[in-house]
This record gives sequence, C-alpha cells and structure tokens, in this order.
Amino acid sequence: MKDKFYNYIQQLQDTITSKLQEVDGQAKFHEDIWERPEGGGGRTRVIENGAVFEKGGVNISAVDGKLPESMQNYFGVKDANFFACGLSLVMHPKSPIVPTVHANWRYFEMYDADGNIVDQWFGGGQDLTPYYLFDEDAQHFHSICKEACDSHHLDFYPNYKKQCDEYFWNAHRNEARGIGGLFFDRLKKTATMSMQDWYNFVTTIGDSFLNGYVPIVEKRKEATYSKAQRDWQEIRRGRYVEFNLVHDKGTLFGLKTNGRIESILMSLPPHVQWVYDHHPEKGSEEERLLQVLSNPKQWV
Amino acid sequence: MKDKFYNYIQQLQDTITSKLQEVDGQAKFHEDIWERPEGGGGRTRVIENGAVFEKGGVNISAVDGKLPESMQNYFGVKDANFFACGLSLVMHPKSPIVPTVHANWRYFEMYDADGNIVDQWFGGGQDLTPYYLFDEDAQHFHSICKEACDSHHLDFYPNYKKQCDEYFWNAHRNEARGIGGLFFDRLKKTATMSMQDWYNFVTTIGDSFLNGYVPIVEKRKEATYSKAQRDWQEIRRGRYVEFNLVHDKGTLFGLKTNGRIESILMSLPPHVQWVYDHHPEKGSEEERLLQVLSNPKQWV
Repeated sequence: MKDKFYNYIQQLQDTITSKLQEVDGQAKFHEDIWERPEGGGGRTRVIENGAVFEKGGVNISAVDGKLPESMQNYFGVKDANFFACGLSLVMHPKSPIVPTVHANWRYFEMYDADGNIVDQWFGGGQDLTPYYLFDEDAQHFHSICKEACDSHHLDFYPNYKKQCDEYFWNAHRNEARGIGGLFFDRLKKTATMSMQDWYNFVTTIGDSFLNGYVPIVEKRKEATYSKAQRDWQEIRRGRYVEFNLVHDKGTLFGLKTNGRIESILMSLPPHVQWVYDHHPEKGSEEERLLQVLSNPKQWV
Repeated sequence: MKDKFYNYIQQLQDTITSKLQEVDGQAKFHEDIWERPEGGGGRTRVIENGAVFEKGGVNISAVDGKLPESMQNYFGVKDANFFACGLSLVMHPKSPIVPTVHANWRYFEMYDADGNIVDQWFGGGQDLTPYYLFDEDAQHFHSICKEACDSHHLDFYPNYKKQCDEYFWNAHRNEARGIGGLFFDRLKKTATMSMQDWYNFVTTIGDSFLNGYVPIVEKRKEATYSKAQRDWQEIRRGRYVEFNLVHDKGTLFGLKTNGRIESILMSLPPHVQWVYDHHPEKGSEEERLLQVLSNPKQWV
C-alpha cells in the first residue's frame, strides 16, 4: 500500500504541477530534492512570481524511522516506528479575485518492534480561500468535492465538509479560514471499508482536485482589480498566516519535529499585511465575505 | 502594590507615547479604551503610517477575576482569582535601518477564596530587533539595560540578558529574533529582595526604556535605503511574526484566553514577506546579521 500510494502522489504531483504551470503561462515550478537525516525525504516544487500564481508549492514527501517523541505522546504509543507520505499544496494567486487553494492527501503506517504494521490510515482534503466571494465558484468547488465523495458513499461529503469547516476554524478570530471543502483523517479499515477502499476514495479525491480549482482560476484570472482590493487580499492573507502558525496541526507538528522548514512554510503567502483593527465598509463585498466566514454555508 | 504599579504604567504610557510621537513628528497615537467582559480592561494606543513608525502600539491593561482554566493548569492551582496589569509595546519603523523594539513590564497577583494574596510577582523586559546591525547601537541598547540593572544588583544584567537570548529564540529557525536585551519573570519576594525592591527594579528598567531606544532612532531615522533593503526588512519581519505566533507565550496565552485580539496582535508588523528558501549573499551585511542572530553575542 505504501509503495502504491507513494507512486500515486508522485504521478499526481507531475499532473498538478504541469497543469498549474500551463494555467500560469509564465513561471515554472522550481524543484528541490531534500533528505531527512532521520530517514526519507521529499520533492518540493515551488512557483514564484508567475502571471497568475504569486507563490505556490506542490510538495511530496515520504519519511520513516523512529516515531518522534512528541508524536509518540500524541498517538499514545511507545517505541514505535512509522512511515508517512503525502502530497501537500498551497497556491497563492497574485490577483485578489482568484482564490487561494490548499490540499493535502497522506498515508501513515505504524510498526511494532518486529516491523509488523500495527496501525495505518489515510487523511487529507482540500479547501478554498477566496478574498472575494463568487457563490458560483464556491458551489462549483463543493460540487466537485461532493461528486467525488458520492461515488464512494453518500455520507462522506456531509461528514468531511463539516469536518473541514471545523478544522479550518480561526478560533481567535471566530471565523473560518475560507469557504471549506473536505477534511478527513484516520481513515482506517472498518467492517465496510478496506484499506483498498480508502485508497480508492482518496485517489478519487486527489484526481478531482484540478477539476475543482482550475475552472475557477481560468474564469477569474483576467479580471482587473484595484489597489484597495489587493490590500484587502493581503490583510486576509494575514488571517491565513495566523491559522497556519497558531492552529494548523500539520504546520506545528512539522516545526516541532525538525521537518524541512522551507517546505513546511512555503504555505505562507508572499506579501501580507496586518492593519490594526481593520473592518470593511458596511454592505461591501468584503463585509459579505466575513459574514459567510463567520457562519459556514451549505454550498451544494 | 497593584494600584501603585498600575499608576506607574499609566504614567509611563503617557511618557513613552508623547516622546515617540515627538520622534515621529507626523503621526499621532490613536487611543482605544476597552473592557474585558470577565473583569478589567485596557487602554490601547496605536500609531500607524508615521514618518518614522510604520506601525506600533503602546498598550496598558489591568485585568482581574477568576483565573482562566488554561492558566490554572499552567500555574498548577485550582479556583484561584487573579489580578494582572502591564504595559506592552512594539514599534515597527518604516525604515529597515531603524530597529524594531519590544518591551513589556507586568505585575501579577493571585488570591485564595478569601481574597488573600497567595502569590505575586513582577515580569518583563525589552529587546531590540535590527534589520541591519550597527554594533554601536547594540552596545548602546545593552549598556542602558546593564546600567539600569547594575544599580540594583550586579548579577541582574548577566542573568536577564541570558534569559532574553533564551526566550526570544526562534527554535524552528535556529536563530534569535533579535539582538536581545532583558527578560525576567516570576520576580518574587526573597531573603534579599522585597516586593518593594522588585518594584524599584522594574520601574528603573521601565524608566530607562526611552534612553535605550530613542537615541538609536534619532541617529538612524534619516538614513536612505534601497528597495532591496526594504524587502530584507519585510522578510525578517516574517521571522518576527513566526516567533510571536508560534513561540511567544504571552501572545498564545492571550489568543487562547479570549484576550482583546487587536491589542494582542498589534505586535504584528504592517507589511511582511515570505520568500521561499531565501538566503542573503555571502559576505553581505544581511548575512552578518544572521550570523550574530544564530549565536547571540555579549555586547557590553
């Protein structure tokens, strides 16, 4: 399973980076291959200063070895070995009219002292962070998520949509990071779902990603925008940074377990503003976004 | 003691804001008075888009009531009441040639069910974050810190300088946030120091602040700088954000205990950049700064 899934995300990285590069039309992804001293490594691909994408990364990694102590405490195990691999992406468009997107699909195995698998699961999801809200874009993104989920089980979309709204919640601001999507974790073997079934599900989701995001980018990338709209985007990007550094378990886990800092923090936006006590004008598009973020909607 | 110290920081806020406003010469501090639903409140003063200061805040607060649960766990007590007051300031100059400064001086009391004081202490310090390193400025800042400390005890400067280097350590970057200063906490009654002695010490430190910072600002504020130097400042400000959101106990405590978000996060710089895998040129001034930050120096 681990080889099969790692092969899958290697190919998916190629598919996604070549498509996003084509959408950008100007900048190319730059590749960094890195190794983790304790075992494993990754392939980071970053794009910067493109026509469409101001900064983004589509990274894969496969790491293994002794489970770090902080993770042993987290999982409540002792002296375990592990394998983890995944694809992680964040794209920050230059235009405030084009939404930021994040996705992550991952697989985890834990072993006892004899090397037997004692636990294994999939996790991941994708979510959209617009700076200006086009209802049809939010509906499109969620429709693709729902369609991919529904082909496996009708409970999946409502469950994982709800988990996404709960996970990407900027508690100290009392608002969502964006308009959500899917979030799932600890997808383990059950009476009705084998690991192969979960593999099929997660790869369906991964395969659907470009269909969810690219049509929105294509539709919005030529739109003109004002300095004030760009400022609003940079202020909202500040909330993105706050979420990732204060609340995101994946980021904090990476920072505290000696992960490759530059690959972890490639998720941070290129230009960001913090303005004291900023509030958009009453009745503005900016205010409408905040209202939706403070009370996540059903989009489909 | 609590009234005496709160009076002191009220006056110090006036002294500091009027002096920094004079140094800026253009922008004025804007004042927000706020109340904490659970008890107490504060007076936030923020300056933005000045000739010298791009963004900064000098805030005081005095809060009291039932000790929040997270803080009870942290202190290992149950059902305690508390009082806490302090002055907290961060100034982010526009010019990369002028350093950012942070300071905080605070007093804490804890009570049993009958309202008796069961514990009390002072804490605080000040530290400097330059984007370009002028050794004479670092020496000046530390000299003022040392002089203020030495008038109370010769051990204080070496101890609190070291604690400052340890506290403001961006562990995930393996570098200090800046060139340090002083950091002290839990200054409690001992055989040789009464609470009045600590009050005298902390107020000496608070009184020395402007002497440490203002001469540096005056000396550097007219210096010209390039776009590249400004970019470097914005990239380094990203490290400031990382420290405050990932490591700073005060910020995280405020975010997790329903503090006034805008007063807590006024510490974040106005314009910030994250560039993937940025490294300054070999032998440059930027690289020299990083070398000093990765290995804190004795300045006096």
